[in-house]
Amino acid sequence: MSAAVNPERTISELKELRALTGDENGAQRVAFTPTWAKARAFLRNKLDDLPVEVHNDAAGNTWATLRGASEKALLIGGHFDSVPNGGWLDGCFNVLAGLEVLRRIAAQYDGKPPFTIRLVDWADEEGARFGKSLFGSSACSGNLDMDEARALVDKAGIRLPDALREHGIDFERVKESGQELAHAAAYLELHIEQGPVLLDLNLPLGAVLGTFGVERHAITFHGQAAHSGSTPMNRRKDAFLAAGKMAAEIYRIAEASKGGVCTIGSCTTKPGIVTSVVEECRITLDQRHLDPAALAQMYAQAREASERFAAEGGVRVSWERLWHIAPRPFHDELITACDDSIRETCGQSLRLPSGPLHDAAEVARAGVPTVMMFVQSLHGISHNKIEDTKEEHLALAVRAFDKLADKALGWIAKP
Amino acid sequence: MSAAVNPERTISELKELRALTGDENGAQRVAFTPTWAKARAFLRNKLDDLPVEVHNDAAGNTWATLRGASEKALLIGGHFDSVPNGGWLDGCFNVLAGLEVLRRIAAQYDGKPPFTIRLVDWADEEGARFGKSLFGSSACSGNLDMDEARALVDKAGIRLPDALREHGIDFERVKESGQELAHAAAYLELHIEQGPVLLDLNLPLGAVLGTFGVERHAITFHGQAAHSGSTPMNRRKDAFLAAGKMAAEIYRIAEASKGGVCTIGSCTTKPGIVTSVVEECRITLDQRHLDPAALAQMYAQAREASERFAAEGGVRVSWERLWHIAPRPFHDELITACDDSIRETCGQSLRLPSGPLHDAAEVARAGVPTVMMFVQSLHGISHNKIEDTKEEHLALAVRAFDKLADKALGWIAKP
Repeated sequence: MSAAVNPERTISELKELRALTGDENGAQRVAFTPTWAKARAFLRNKLDDLPVEVHNDAAGNTWATLRGASEKALLIGGHFDSVPNGGWLDGCFNVLAGLEVLRRIAAQYDGKPPFTIRLVDWADEEGARFGKSLFGSSACSGNLDMDEARALVDKAGIRLPDALREHGIDFERVKESGQELAHAAAYLELHIEQGPVLLDLNLPLGAVLGTFGVERHAITFHGQAAHSGSTPMNRRKDAFLAAGKMAAEIYRIAEASKGGVCTIGSCTTKPGIVTSVVEECRITLDQRHLDPAALAQMYAQAREASERFAAEGGVRVSWERLWHIAPRPFHDELITACDDSIRETCGQSLRLPSGPLHDAAEVARAGVPTVMMFVQSLHGISHNKIEDTKEEHLALAVRAFDKLADKALGWIAKP
Repeated sequence: MSAAVNPERTISELKELRALTGDENGAQRVAFTPTWAKARAFLRNKLDDLPVEVHNDAAGNTWATLRGASEKALLIGGHFDSVPNGGWLDGCFNVLAGLEVLRRIAAQYDGKPPFTIRLVDWADEEGARFGKSLFGSSACSGNLDMDEARALVDKAGIRLPDALREHGIDFERVKESGQELAHAAAYLELHIEQGPVLLDLNLPLGAVLGTFGVERHAITFHGQAAHSGSTPMNRRKDAFLAAGKMAAEIYRIAEASKGGVCTIGSCTTKPGIVTSVVEECRITLDQRHLDPAALAQMYAQAREASERFAAEGGVRVSWERLWHIAPRPFHDELITACDDSIRETCGQSLRLPSGPLHDAAEVARAGVPTVMMFVQSLHGISHNKIEDTKEEHLALAVRAFDKLADKALGWIAKP
């Protein structure tokens, strides 16, 4: 074996996997399905050639461990599962690039590196079948809500615990997977960006600062139905007028936040007929920011604006929190190591936050120093069969990620 | 019989009718139902005491004719039908006030006035059962769309022609009712306002300038779905952003139109999920004005604004006309007569347009000089059991409407 990564091999393995588990509509590696099991068997088969111990933990995450001189471990992770009709790179590129790094380290140190190296394939990052993402990593980090997860049911009416049992997993014991993190010293994850930031700047790679915190609310304006023909404009209590004003306002709030995003994804109206002023209008608002204070301010500003618009129009407004997660900043020194690795590989780097969540957020939450590297995504689109990345960028990513692994080992070695 | 109207009798008859055909949820005189037939039998019974000929025309409209020295006829109209759970005055007040005027004229001229006086109870003004308003009056004016009406079906699956047959009406012959207008010289209709204009100005009565024209459209903005977390604000093609801007814009357009109204009654979003930028947003826009040029301008301005907002947000917009009706202005000299009658009765009057349509619009469309009188509506609300009008205003309305009938007879007599 050579003591250098072979990115072409990774690209060829990605294509092999696509042929094995995809179809004309895209990737079909939905967790806890036969196609996913086939993808994982493919990975096991590749690992057979390496001096590693392989096992599934209590939550179904697959771990490949290359024992080092020290128990202290560098973790490299990804997920083989995809959404239905998903992209060919999302998740599995991380695992296969990590596999290549594992090969390089095993070769370089003749099977005995100074620290333990562990490749993990997280189970069910996407949550495509049961509607709950980050299953395996949140079980491992200890943050999985057991009561909520126990009640999850797929479209066919099958409960999550029953689906897990078919894959040899005892739902009530999934949090025992947490012991896998006992000697974790650092966690690295490579991922396609899933957005257009690197594409717009024409950069192949970026160092990820952390995952956004999310404030997710339903906002309902309560006005009064009135005849569209007989009600003068100044007599109306128009719930849609207030809700509509929020559309442009959230763009102002996001801009002022320096780096946050706000989205109104849904709007419904009651009675919702052409001849009546809208009595009730409900919109959903999703706000994300890397900085907790900025996120809190975006939320406060949206709330204040909604109350101002309601007062202007003589309507009432109520807020209901749908979901909340705190920002998950990554480790400063590992971010620098990531940034340096990218710069050394392709000259230029960018530090950027991650809008979507990733397994890395759960690992960071468990206290493990973490960083992610993003590779440019063509079209800025994921969860779709048109998701793609230039092969030259995939190759650069494998090389830079390998450099990052080296730097991380150096960082772990520091007193 | 006395040669003066007796408004207290009208109020007492209104209460009698309410007891006979209403319940705790309001008026239940839905056209082509047994309760409506009961209401009409009540009217026939009242007409028995008068020297009038009563018949139903080919469209089911009831006509009570007091023959005069001339065939030229003054028509007074209203509708006994209501929406389900409707107001106690909507429609039937017109008929019963007209009945009182008929009594006064019959008494004054000893059964032989100079011109013929005809009271008409239009069939199915509300369209509550088959979803198509102004049935009887549009058949009579010749404007009923026969193909559309023939296909109408109620919630129980009964076709309009079959429902009509049960009430002795041959659908294919309904337009023969048009001959009833052969000698019509003027048409008067009294109605509750159904809006808050008179209430706000603390005026009992107003002279109606005509019914609004209506432009009714569906406007669809076509953007692009994108992940709420990974898509920077300046990369979005957000269909809801453009649609939301319309909310406040239509208020500016209505204000600039001097007297028009605009309503966005419904908003739907696709995919309509909390984690995606809105790809498609459809709103309905209802615009009304008494002046055709102003209505056309309001429509053009809304269209221009939608295109501007679409361009600003990088989205596309398409318009679909749902319905259109031209403004129906009433007769200038009759408006003056109405205004004068109100002023003589209660000191102050107001000229105002009608936002909702009325049978009077169809009669005017058939070329008969027409005017309506509005009486203040408490709460500015109709089509609801809480609809109400002060008894003193009902009494003033009967007196003023009677004066208007006198002035109209004088106007008809002019060479």
